[in-house]
Amino acid sequence: MRYDIGLDVGGTNLSAGVVDEEGRVISHAALPAGAGRSIDEITADMAKVSLMAVENAGLTLRDMASWGIGMPSYVNPRTGLLVHANCFGWRNVPIYRYLEPLIALPIYIENDANCAVLGETVAGAAKDFQNVVMLTLGTGVGGGIILNGRIYSGADGLGAELGHTKLFFRGRKCTCGQMGCIDGYCSARGLKETAKEMLTDGTLLWDLCHHDIRKLEAQMVTEAVQLGDQTAVEIWDLYLSQLAAAIGNFIAIFRPEAVILGGGVAKASDLLLNPLRKKVQESTFAAQEIGIPEMRLAQAGNDAGIIGAAVLEKYGIDRREK
Amino acid sequence: MRYDIGLDVGGTNLSAGVVDEEGRVISHAALPAGAGRSIDEITADMAKVSLMAVENAGLTLRDMASWGIGMPSYVNPRTGLLVHANCFGWRNVPIYRYLEPLIALPIYIENDANCAVLGETVAGAAKDFQNVVMLTLGTGVGGGIILNGRIYSGADGLGAELGHTKLFFRGRKCTCGQMGCIDGYCSARGLKETAKEMLTDGTLLWDLCHHDIRKLEAQMVTEAVQLGDQTAVEIWDLYLSQLAAAIGNFIAIFRPEAVILGGGVAKASDLLLNPLRKKVQESTFAAQEIGIPEMRLAQAGNDAGIIGAAVLEKYGIDRREK
Repeated sequence: MRYDIGLDVGGTNLSAGVVDEEGRVISHAALPAGAGRSIDEITADMAKVSLMAVENAGLTLRDMASWGIGMPSYVNPRTGLLVHANCFGWRNVPIYRYLEPLIALPIYIENDANCAVLGETVAGAAKDFQNVVMLTLGTGVGGGIILNGRIYSGADGLGAELGHTKLFFRGRKCTCGQMGCIDGYCSARGLKETAKEMLTDGTLLWDLCHHDIRKLEAQMVTEAVQLGDQTAVEIWDLYLSQLAAAIGNFIAIFRPEAVILGGGVAKASDLLLNPLRKKVQESTFAAQEIGIPEMRLAQAGNDAGIIGAAVLEKYGIDRREK
Repeated sequence: MRYDIGLDVGGTNLSAGVVDEEGRVISHAALPAGAGRSIDEITADMAKVSLMAVENAGLTLRDMASWGIGMPSYVNPRTGLLVHANCFGWRNVPIYRYLEPLIALPIYIENDANCAVLGETVAGAAKDFQNVVMLTLGTGVGGGIILNGRIYSGADGLGAELGHTKLFFRGRKCTCGQMGCIDGYCSARGLKETAKEMLTDGTLLWDLCHHDIRKLEAQMVTEAVQLGDQTAVEIWDLYLSQLAAAIGNFIAIFRPEAVILGGGVAKASDLLLNPLRKKVQESTFAAQEIGIPEMRLAQAGNDAGIIGAAVLEKYGIDRREK
C-alpha cells in the first residue's frame, strides 16, 4: 500500500493527514497556524503537524511516498516562489528552500481550492468524473478545475481564478481590487452584502439580526427563508440567479461533466441545489440543446484539501523551477 | 510536401484553399454559399469549391492528405451530428454522411472561430505561442482557445463559447436567448447598440449617420473618434472598458501567452490596441504581480479560417462518432 502525507494550510489551522492509495485519510493531526509568526516558525510547524499525522497512522516517514501541501496561494512555476499568502502576509517566498530541509520527501505545493476539487474528484462527490468545476462558496469564492483527471490552472499555472472573473461590469468593489467579481456576490460575504442592500425593517430577517444591520450574517438569510420571510426569499432568489449565471459561464467554457459546490453557503443544501439546477438550466448557453452537467454538493468536507494535497504527485501540475 | 484542403463555410461564401505543410495557402477558390438551398446542394458546392482550389494549385486529390472544414457550428462528438448552423437553418445534420461520398479524404469539421485561432497560431499573429485566446469582434463575438498547441473546446467538445459568457448580469438580451453576454456588447452589433444609447444630436456622430439613428453603424464610432467627436470618444472608451473586462476574465481563467483580436472592430487598430492594453492591465486579476499576455491583432485575415481548417488533422479534436 502506498501512503502520502496531505497538509492543508489555512489562516487558522494546519491540518494534516496520511492518505492511502484508495484516497482514504487514515490519520489526522492539526496545529494552530499561528499567523504572524516568522516563515521559519510556520514552516517548522507545517513539518511538525505532518509528522504527527504519520505517527498517528502508526507509520514512519519511510512509509510515505510524497508530501503534498495545499496553501491559499500559488507557486509560480517560472520562479519557484510562492506568489503571495495573504493570511501570513507572505510575498514571493522561496517556500521549497524552507521545507526541503525539514522532511526528506518529494514536495508538491498547490493552491488550496485546486486541492479541494482534486480531493472531491479522487474520493468525493465527483468520483466518477474526469472533468469537474468546483466552486467553494465560503467567505470568498474559491474555484478549481479538473480537466482529464488533472488540475488545470492556466497555461502558466497561475490561472483558473474563477472567483475573480467578473459577472457584474463595474459592480461591487472586490477584495482583489477589481470590480464586479463573482467573489463579491456569490460568496457568503457577497450574500450578506446583497441582504444588507435589500433588507427592510418589519421583516423576520430584521428581527433575526436584532434590528442591527451590522449583526446580519449570511446564514440568517437562509434561516429567514425557512421561516417564510418574503424579503429573505427575494434575497436568496437573487443570490441563486447570480450564482447560476456564474456557473453558466463556466459550463459554457469548460462543459465539465460535473459542477461541485462546497463551502459555508452550500450547507443550505435543501434550499440550494434544486432551485439552482433550474436556474442554471435557464441561464446557460445552449442548455436546451446540449444539457447541463451534474450538479452536486461537496462530500469530502475538510478532508478534501488533505486528500487533494496527498495526490498532487499523481494529478497535479509540476510547479518546480525548471 | 504535404498538402491539405481547408474550407471556410460562411453564411455568404464558401472559401477554399490548398495549404502546404508550412501553413501557406498556395491556392484559393470561392463560391456563393447559397443559403436557403437544400443540404444536398450546399454540401455539393462545398466539395466543388474544394476541388476548384486543388485544381487552382495545379495538383490533384491524390496530392491531398485531408479535407478540413470550418463551419459556424459544432459537430457533437457523442452523436456525430452538426448541432446547428443558423446561417443555413440546419439542426442536427448528419454532415459526414453528406460529405463522405463527395471527396474520398479524411474529413475534419470544426467551429469556424476555433479554425481562426488555430490558423493564427499555426501561421499568423500567434505563431510563437502554444496557449492562445482569440476573440473575433465581428457581427457577433467569436472565441477560440488553443491550449498546448491544440484546439480546446470543453470536455465534451461543445464549449469554449467565450462570446456567450456573461459579463453583464441581467444585461442586454443576446441573440442566443441569454442576457448580458459579451457578444451583445463587444461585437460590432454591441458597439452600435451602445452608440445608439449614448448618441445625442448636435454631435459629429449624429451628422455621420445623417441625423437618422437607424443609419448608425459601428465603424462610424471610430470614424467620429478620429474626427475628435467627444460623444464618440466616450462611447469608444466604454466599449474598450467592456472589452478589457471580458479579456481580463479569460486571462484570469486561462493565463494564455497571447490574446489575439480579429474581426471588423479590430480593423480600428490604431484606436484599439494601445488603449486596450492599458485597460486590460487595470482590469485583470493580479496583473500587477504576474503581468498580462501579449496582445496582438490577427494577421492571417480571411486565410486564418482556411489554414486552421487545413491543419485540423494535426491540431484539432476528434469529433467523429465513437
